[in-house]
Parts: sequence; structure tokens; C-alpha cells
Amino acid sequence: MSLHLIIPEGRLDSWRNHIQKAAPGLAIHEQDNAVEDVDYAFVWLPPPGELARFPNLKVIFSMGAGVDHVFADPNLPDVPIVRVVDENLTMRMTEWVVMNVLLHHRQFRAYDVQNSKAEWLEREQPGADEVCVGVMGLGVIGADSALRLRDLGFQVAGWSNSRKDIAGIESFAGESEKQEFLNRTDILINLLPLTPQTQGLIDAKLIGSLARNGAISGPIIINAGRGGSQVEADIIGCLNDGSLAGASLDVFETEPLPAESPLWANPNVFITPHVAAVSDPVSISTYVAKQITRFEQGKPLQNVVDPNTRY
Amino acid sequence: MSLHLIIPEGRLDSWRNHIQKAAPGLAIHEQDNAVEDVDYAFVWLPPPGELARFPNLKVIFSMGAGVDHVFADPNLPDVPIVRVVDENLTMRMTEWVVMNVLLHHRQFRAYDVQNSKAEWLEREQPGADEVCVGVMGLGVIGADSALRLRDLGFQVAGWSNSRKDIAGIESFAGESEKQEFLNRTDILINLLPLTPQTQGLIDAKLIGSLARNGAISGPIIINAGRGGSQVEADIIGCLNDGSLAGASLDVFETEPLPAESPLWANPNVFITPHVAAVSDPVSISTYVAKQITRFEQGKPLQNVVDPNTRY
Repeated sequence: MSLHLIIPEGRLDSWRNHIQKAAPGLAIHEQDNAVEDVDYAFVWLPPPGELARFPNLKVIFSMGAGVDHVFADPNLPDVPIVRVVDENLTMRMTEWVVMNVLLHHRQFRAYDVQNSKAEWLEREQPGADEVCVGVMGLGVIGADSALRLRDLGFQVAGWSNSRKDIAGIESFAGESEKQEFLNRTDILINLLPLTPQTQGLIDAKLIGSLARNGAISGPIIINAGRGGSQVEADIIGCLNDGSLAGASLDVFETEPLPAESPLWANPNVFITPHVAAVSDPVSISTYVAKQITRFEQGKPLQNVVDPNTRY
Repeated sequence: MSLHLIIPEGRLDSWRNHIQKAAPGLAIHEQDNAVEDVDYAFVWLPPPGELARFPNLKVIFSMGAGVDHVFADPNLPDVPIVRVVDENLTMRMTEWVVMNVLLHHRQFRAYDVQNSKAEWLEREQPGADEVCVGVMGLGVIGADSALRLRDLGFQVAGWSNSRKDIAGIESFAGESEKQEFLNRTDILINLLPLTPQTQGLIDAKLIGSLARNGAISGPIIINAGRGGSQVEADIIGCLNDGSLAGASLDVFETEPLPAESPLWANPNVFITPHVAAVSDPVSISTYVAKQITRFEQGKPLQNVVDPNTRY
């Protein structure tokens, strides 16, 4: 059996080593080997048409939890696509989400500005139980974030395609309940995958639907899903006209975020360069090795992507 | 029955209203009423000698969780002192603690500085499971913070006078285990009450005992207990010589923190003006009213302070 890696230059050697360590019996397929030999592919941002070169390909493994980078290829071979579901990745994403909710809730920037002036001034502070956090996407990561925020005392609701039963989390499902979910949400968190349905989801209309008579100063958007789900021109416009009080963004329509974007300089926007949940190579290599072993033993693959919903 | 309020001017009227609303049957004792009438006192920063004026005083209620402001009075009458244990206060303190641990862990300041330069640069990020958080003080508040940090994946240890049995939290007890506790701690959180034993506890010697070969860049101090437990000159010295990587301070030796303190301007120090857990007047008034009702019914008071340990 043989695995072909399609990884942007620079990181290829490191991943090859990690995967070889996790699966010592696995042959790593190199560019000059026969394309017929390739059983598996491990990919990040594969160039369109590249995967179609391997006639005997059995499984495509995405390097991350998202698979929009795989579906960007219009000539994708018809084989199972497995995405990463990894405890370490979930944990890191939850850290980032919880920190950013608290940064806005606890008025971090206002205190930081006061500090720069040596100003000792108490600000009115609502309790977490007065604030409604809404999580879009209640998969493994969304559910974990929702639970941790619930434990901190926030009112937490979730919105997803299908209704989820998570203790203490109010679950809204489908297009028909989207408006009700948005209307009650003070702090909106996006953890949805990028699909044709979620492309451009976070626009001025959505922001206009958020709660604005709550305990905090105005609606907040937190996006750790995909940049393609946000309309940055709308976010900037809503920040400027005051209909959006703040944002935390880890992902962007164009990455790296262009230097001329006004998001960089906005004091109410917390930016990180797509690092909310960095893939841990050891952990992910172990996961892929385990999946290949299962597959070779005739057991079903786990976390196979549905080509219709694309997650 | 009659309650006397000893509250700094400015906030007196507001507290009188809140307590009257929570306990409509309770007479609020005013300055010109007879001192013999006073059964209960509700106090914050009582002037020394003030409480000794009331010969029939039965219980002293502290406005906060800490009672060091009561013990500052050398002529304290020998009656029970009840401190506040309030879910709302605990929740707010945990929010503040969790946020500040994550700010240091996730290198918030470094990214914020990058953002001011529109710089897209990923920084190496350890997982929470590689970082050891140590909580000094495992009472109701410390235990809650410890549990929430445990759920985020941190290794959490606690240090207190007596050993505590909290699932997933390594418990260290007493002076004999203090050194071992400090040696393994990357991020130190102080939630101890201010007592003669904890006065000046966080000094250069303690900072020198913290772990410094861990996954994060260097030791971090987080203090939401009392300012009297920290030696600010030592903290500043350790920040300057690099033996302390950062701090989050909500409390100070002198409050308000004097404008000339170099802590204000240090980018690795996050300062809040003693607001980590602001007492919610409604919640605390309800608590005091409930305690008085219990006492009048002959039931034992709750959360009575031990005059020896002073917490």
C-alpha cells in the first residue's frame, strides 16, 4: 500500500516524516513513482486535477477538519473523502472560541485602552447568564465550544442542519428556525464548514438580524469556520455604522488578510492569522495511520464526508 | 430586628435600597437611632472601632467574599463574621480567571502587536495539555476556576491549607508541599484570602520557584485574590529581568493603582481595576436576607469565618 502526499511545498518534508513515524509500514509515494501504485492521498489545497491522476486511488484524507479545499477540485475522483476529527484540534478551537467570547463579554479592549492611560475606572459588567451566545454548526467542535460556554454560565443556543440534543443547549435546526436563532443571539460564533450553502452567510442582512437590546453593547461576530462564509465589506460597513459592536476573526476571504484591510486597525476586531486550531502533525498522522489500518482490515472508515452536504 | 450598614458613602443609598427590597421586614438602622438597637451589621471597609459601638451586635456580614477588610479592625466585637459565597460572584471570577489564562496561553498580546502592523504571522502554539496551571486557594471560587480550566484541557493543580478531592485536579496541601506545587506550575493563579500567612506571598522568591522549562515562554502570575498578597516591586523586577513572562492583576497593594506604577504600561501585564468579580447587589442582598432569616429561626449561619484562619 502506498500514500501520496499533496501538501504545499515548505511543509511537505515535515508531514512526510510525521506520517512515516505514525505508519512505519506505509510506503510514501514520491513524484517519480508510478501513478498506478497510489492507494491513498493525504492532501491540503490539492491543485485541481491532481487527484484524478491516480487511477487506483481508494481514499482521500484531508489534512484538516474542513474539506472545502478538496471540493474546490472539479475533477475529484469518486472515492471516500475522510476529514480530521481530532481531540487536540477540537480542544484548540474551543480555547480560541472561549477566549474570544470572554474578550468581548468582559470588555477587554475598553480596559486595555484605559490601561494605556493609567485610568482606573470600573465599567458596568453584565453576568454571563444575561448574554446569549449562538453557535452556528454543532458538530464535534461546535458542541464542545457550546458546552464549555454553557459551563461558564452563558445562555447557549446552537443552529445546525439537524436538531441536536445537547444538555443545556437550545437547538435550532434548518432554514425555518434560522431567524429565531439569530434574533436571540448577542454573540454569534461561526463554526460551519464552507459549502455552497454557507458561502457569504455572514452578511449585513444576517448581522441586522442579531439581538441588539441585550446586556452587552451590541452584536458580536466570531468566525473560526471559513473566511468564505463572511462578507468582509458588510462586516466593515456594520462596524462603521455601529450595527456591529465587535468581531473576532481567524479566517478571511483572502488569506493572508491583505495589509490594506481596515479590519487590521479596528480596535473592536480581534484578528488571528488562521491559527485558532492549528493541526498537530503528530496527532493527525496517528489518526490517518489508524484510518488506513482500519480500511485495510475491512472495517468502515470514520468521518467520511457526505458529498452532498460536503461535511 | 435591625441592620446597620457600614458602607463607603456614594454606594450607601443603593445598598440600603437593595437590602430593603430583599428583606422588607428588616429595619435599616440609621446613624441617629440608638446603638443598642443594632442586631446585625453589613459592612465594607468598616472604620476601626466602628463595630464596637454596638453592644447587642449578633452577626457581622461582609459585603464580599474576602473579610480582610473586617479583620483590619483591632477592636472587632466577638461575634460571628459571615462572608459572601455567591454563585454569581463565583461565575464572574471564573470568567475573569479563564480569560486571563487564555490571554497568556494563546499569546494574545503578541498577535495584537502583529495586528497593529498588519502582520500575518503564525506563532508556535502549545496545546493546553502541555501547560500546567496552579491554583492557590481551592475554596468555592478556586475549585470552580480549576474545573473550568481542567475542562479546557489544561493540567491543573491546586494548593490549599487542607487537601481537596476534586476530580482531575492534583491537590497539594500546606507549607510542606508548596515548593513541589510551585516547581510544576507554568501559570500561577492566586485566589487566596488575605491573611497574615498570605501577606506578601507572591514575591521574587515565589516567582523564582515556578516552572520555566515548560511549553510556554515563561512563568505567568494571575492575581484575583488580594493586592496585599503580592509584592509589586518584585513582580516588576522579575518582569524586567525576564524571570516572569507576564501577569494579569485585578488587585493591587494600593487601590486605585497609582498612575506612576510601571505595571500600567507593561505590554505583558493585563490590568483590571478590581472588577474580576464585582458583587451583584441583588444577589448579595438576597443572600444576607436569607442568612438573617435562618439565624432568627435558630438555624446555623452559613459561611462563618474562622477567626484563626481568617477565611
